[in-house]
Amino acid sequence: MRTFLRAQAVLQTSFYLKPSPSHTKLQLFHQSCRKNSKTRIMGSTDMPAGSSTVNSKVHWTLETALANVPSPVTAPSSSPLAFLHILEKLKTTPREGWRKHGVSNGESISDHMYRMSIISMLCPDPVVNRDHCVKMAIVHDMAESLVGDITPFDGIDKNEKHSRELQTMKYLTQTLLTPSNPQIADEILSIWQEYENGSTPEAIFVKDVDKFELLCQTVEYEKKCEGQKDLSEFLWVANVIKTDYVKKWASDLLEERDAFWRDVNEKKE
Amino acid sequence: MRTFLRAQAVLQTSFYLKPSPSHTKLQLFHQSCRKNSKTRIMGSTDMPAGSSTVNSKVHWTLETALANVPSPVTAPSSSPLAFLHILEKLKTTPREGWRKHGVSNGESISDHMYRMSIISMLCPDPVVNRDHCVKMAIVHDMAESLVGDITPFDGIDKNEKHSRELQTMKYLTQTLLTPSNPQIADEILSIWQEYENGSTPEAIFVKDVDKFELLCQTVEYEKKCEGQKDLSEFLWVANVIKTDYVKKWASDLLEERDAFWRDVNEKKE
Repeated sequence: MRTFLRAQAVLQTSFYLKPSPSHTKLQLFHQSCRKNSKTRIMGSTDMPAGSSTVNSKVHWTLETALANVPSPVTAPSSSPLAFLHILEKLKTTPREGWRKHGVSNGESISDHMYRMSIISMLCPDPVVNRDHCVKMAIVHDMAESLVGDITPFDGIDKNEKHSRELQTMKYLTQTLLTPSNPQIADEILSIWQEYENGSTPEAIFVKDVDKFELLCQTVEYEKKCEGQKDLSEFLWVANVIKTDYVKKWASDLLEERDAFWRDVNEKKE
Repeated sequence: MRTFLRAQAVLQTSFYLKPSPSHTKLQLFHQSCRKNSKTRIMGSTDMPAGSSTVNSKVHWTLETALANVPSPVTAPSSSPLAFLHILEKLKTTPREGWRKHGVSNGESISDHMYRMSIISMLCPDPVVNRDHCVKMAIVHDMAESLVGDITPFDGIDKNEKHSRELQTMKYLTQTLLTPSNPQIADEILSIWQEYENGSTPEAIFVKDVDKFELLCQTVEYEKKCEGQKDLSEFLWVANVIKTDYVKKWASDLLEERDAFWRDVNEKKE
């Protein structure tokens, strides 16, 4: 409900395609995009960490998550290979928000972090250390390789989510990376914690980038579906962006979205 | 043929699953992995830039490539949105090597660059500027958003490939990014050119990371297919890795692969 109200707040300041009276918002969200109706196919041996089984309240443990990695690791090693094999899950785990709304071939978690890293390079604030932001962008969702992409719909509270992710990050860095490269292991864990704390200028900016990248992808998926899918539920994040320049980018994007939906509406009339 | 000979050179130094006399190397490559037999689904409105149409000798121009972007751009803007929308193609364009060998749900170009950026963080050489390498990893294949992932099998010579990519990088940076952020536009183009020239310690390292990440993914796909797919054609890149520490990582990886194939063989016997 909180999410819905936030979305409404955004929509009041932005043109929005009104659904016809016979279509509720919920119905619109569940309409499939007919041209792209199939969801990402995962082989039976490649259960995504972000699946509902792994995201459930009861079942998650580091050990069960590791059992889903094709190259499981039991002992520390002088090589970073075990660490890198686990990160492959970031390529194959789709972002949950899109999956839940039936977006076909949804981006992976690493796809999302990739574009965030490029957006981080674009920071116009000279006070912000851009190189540090780029690294934060590629590190901040790393724990999702084993925890999955937990969304507000999964019923997992913030502390539990943080606890799972911290446990995973410590395993990836202190257990798997420290034997081959203790300095980098410390750096990665530290960057992740800095993002979680969210108090440095870099963490504040990258958190905004996280939201802005989501908004870009929202509009892009709507466009790909040629107006057959309304993803306005995600727009609320525009309201919690903190930095002025990312606010401006988001505002430009919402204007672009408005123009798109006006065009869709006009074609229907 | 050059690729095949290089693969053979690697295989002479590494245990290799010998195909039975009734199976040629080519037949093995074309066997589908039965559990994961479907290729990545692309909607008709989302023609990947890396498809054979775009990769053909005759048809590529910047204008035709731009026509495949869902949010085409005709005029410079004070916003980085047009640039970012084009980069979305990196999320949806599968890496060609896997696609050609029937690997289902193959990684995207941005998936590949993502893990390369993390591997770049692991550089143990204090002479190498790691932060610069991370940025180089996320920039080096950026032109593939419009050019596609050209492989040696596409019959496009190196100069033509470079020309297409340079044209794209200039468009992305000088045309699209300069109006909003000239400094970063210059930086991105400069990093891309440094990688192409390949002479700085950072460029030499990131080129090795490119090969090593490919090797990791090769072994991971083979494992996922439980020995039903032989991707040894890609192993030749291990022979052209230049830095000692990446050579060591690759050697550890090939040992891991040997153990996997020994296990597969033993189960068959």
